[in-house]
Amino acid sequence: MRQRISDHMSAMKPSAIREMLKLAAPDVISFTAGNPSADLFPAEELARITADVIMNMPARALQYSVTEGYAPLIEKVKAYLSSKYSIPTDGELIITSGAQQAIELTAKCLINPGDAVITENPSFIGALNAFRSYGARLIGAETDENGMVIEAVEEILKREKNVSFIYTIPTFQNPTGATMTMERRRRLLELAEKYDVIVLEDSPYFELCFSGKVTPPIKTMDTEGRILYAGTFSKTIAPGLRVGYALGPKWLISKMVVAKQVSDVHTNLPAMMAVDRILETYDLEGHIKQCRAAYKAKRDLMAAEMEKRFDPRVKFTRPEGGLFIWGELPEGCPSLGLCAIAQKHKVAVVPGMTFDPAESELNRGFRLNFSVPTEEQIVNGIRLMGESIDEYLAERV
Amino acid sequence: MRQRISDHMSAMKPSAIREMLKLAAPDVISFTAGNPSADLFPAEELARITADVIMNMPARALQYSVTEGYAPLIEKVKAYLSSKYSIPTDGELIITSGAQQAIELTAKCLINPGDAVITENPSFIGALNAFRSYGARLIGAETDENGMVIEAVEEILKREKNVSFIYTIPTFQNPTGATMTMERRRRLLELAEKYDVIVLEDSPYFELCFSGKVTPPIKTMDTEGRILYAGTFSKTIAPGLRVGYALGPKWLISKMVVAKQVSDVHTNLPAMMAVDRILETYDLEGHIKQCRAAYKAKRDLMAAEMEKRFDPRVKFTRPEGGLFIWGELPEGCPSLGLCAIAQKHKVAVVPGMTFDPAESELNRGFRLNFSVPTEEQIVNGIRLMGESIDEYLAERV
Repeated sequence: MRQRISDHMSAMKPSAIREMLKLAAPDVISFTAGNPSADLFPAEELARITADVIMNMPARALQYSVTEGYAPLIEKVKAYLSSKYSIPTDGELIITSGAQQAIELTAKCLINPGDAVITENPSFIGALNAFRSYGARLIGAETDENGMVIEAVEEILKREKNVSFIYTIPTFQNPTGATMTMERRRRLLELAEKYDVIVLEDSPYFELCFSGKVTPPIKTMDTEGRILYAGTFSKTIAPGLRVGYALGPKWLISKMVVAKQVSDVHTNLPAMMAVDRILETYDLEGHIKQCRAAYKAKRDLMAAEMEKRFDPRVKFTRPEGGLFIWGELPEGCPSLGLCAIAQKHKVAVVPGMTFDPAESELNRGFRLNFSVPTEEQIVNGIRLMGESIDEYLAERV
Repeated sequence: MRQRISDHMSAMKPSAIREMLKLAAPDVISFTAGNPSADLFPAEELARITADVIMNMPARALQYSVTEGYAPLIEKVKAYLSSKYSIPTDGELIITSGAQQAIELTAKCLINPGDAVITENPSFIGALNAFRSYGARLIGAETDENGMVIEAVEEILKREKNVSFIYTIPTFQNPTGATMTMERRRRLLELAEKYDVIVLEDSPYFELCFSGKVTPPIKTMDTEGRILYAGTFSKTIAPGLRVGYALGPKWLISKMVVAKQVSDVHTNLPAMMAVDRILETYDLEGHIKQCRAAYKAKRDLMAAEMEKRFDPRVKFTRPEGGLFIWGELPEGCPSLGLCAIAQKHKVAVVPGMTFDPAESELNRGFRLNFSVPTEEQIVNGIRLMGESIDEYLAERV
């Protein structure tokens, strides 16, 4: 039988991370997750609220509805973004099945096969793969501890003809944890205006700031509707609900609504109504404060253990929020080799190649998640990682 | 600002039906829905079960999970299809966010721009638009009261070079309500084998058979994994949950998993777990029997009223299940004109052009939904439709 997959999908492979999650043996300490901590989910409230909306509003909660999303939730998310974070909400907002769907709909609506998409190098695999699945050429821009290097972005914009959009996670980036400075945010927006390209600002982690002081999203400076802003409740409420959103100019959001209509008609209604009710009645701010404190304690512990256990030639970030620390091995030491050794030592991290727009096997980075493991797992796992690094460097350097 | 939409999405418009649903004035009797009746949703059970899974299994119900779907549900759906309907489940099964997503993932994985997709004429707008959104050329095959005319399908297969797949809703088709005979099902499968094409069998309504006797899906005859079978719990449990599935050969389902990974990571977990529990503990068979009886009563009433009120030159189907009756105006009377008059008379049906793969404005069909309106609305609405038809035919014939 002819087994012909479409050209744009034929090279696509399952996400290395998700496959790893499936294979991880129970005795392996895993730092591979991209998950928030399940201990922090407001399960009791969600159980109560969800039962209530299904029981008392079945004709709304269980029936088909409009593709844009549950109307009261759209208004509440706009009010939340505007009042708490001064994000301009004069554009349109669509509720999506997680921010992942906001990214995928953007890709579907903007990318022609062969178009360039400029991303951070490294960047979030789920977004990179969404862009690839529409035939984009990914052009990774250099990053440092302050996020995207703006000169690198301009170099790319100068030389590339068909740039579909720029993709960035400016705050507590995945995978590096880096935060783009305000100065760079301003300059990135100026560049986008100068070269007339859209910016997809992916902002899943910005509320998880350990200092409690939120870095304003680029969207707060957007006066002309050039920034498509993707957000989610996956990290502040719970990812299993799959409720995210995109906020942007009407010409683009209205096309994303059409794309979503053929994709899943609309997002799960009990979940949209539960998030709506959470925004109305629950102390989400207090809950987010708890998350910040819990993740800060784990970040502190992991960073302290890394200081103690890692060879000083290994560099790593000290993110002020989010879920990840990024390590980098010395010149000539691709992290794939380290991951193989770590596997033997029963500890798992994600190799940087996964996040590399060019998928280079020579990538020297690796990502560690600190939100999911317990304190004990952090202490033991970082010790095992340190030993793995020693073994690897002894081989290579 | 440059507002460039990708080529494959640029011609896409919002679904006419969904836009109509939004605009419908409250005093209009609407037969436009594609919805099951909200009165029949097992709201109490769903409320209780959903609260239970969230409360007692938060680390499963609220966390990220694998893209394929909640593993116990995958097994239960396979067991359900196999034991109740003798559907071979040796392939792979993916849980999707409604059958709409099963259709969209199929399109993404199989269609190259310019490929032909053979569909029934008329066919489900949500599927047609999903195919269009990947640049497919839709080739509508003639249908009659026994479904797809097989000779018409073979003509197309002979003449078209790049056929991506054949799309059919063989039982209680949307929009016509027609059911393909067993003989034609056999011949369609033979044709697919002869011309080496995949068949996407979309089966949302087959359990809603008024006689209680289910017509076996084409998939029951599939020995070589040529049929991709799409199903849903939207019509038997509730559409707001967005839980459907696709069952097919491993080479295709595994690629659809990759496509879903970048689309929404996975389907809403509390909904998957609730459907799993419904299949385990709830009398779904008894519930479906209730749905059949309720819809049969409405179909009987609507058909009887149509007999009384419609000009005898208007033909219509008497479907043995599903949610829809299809009417057809005499030669030279496009249904768009009728819909405009009906609007004045405060009654709404969906014009056939919506379901026409070629979107011909000359299409003479129109779709009536009988599951949502009350008995009173059916009686009054059909009278208004009859008057609208009289007015229109007096103008045209």
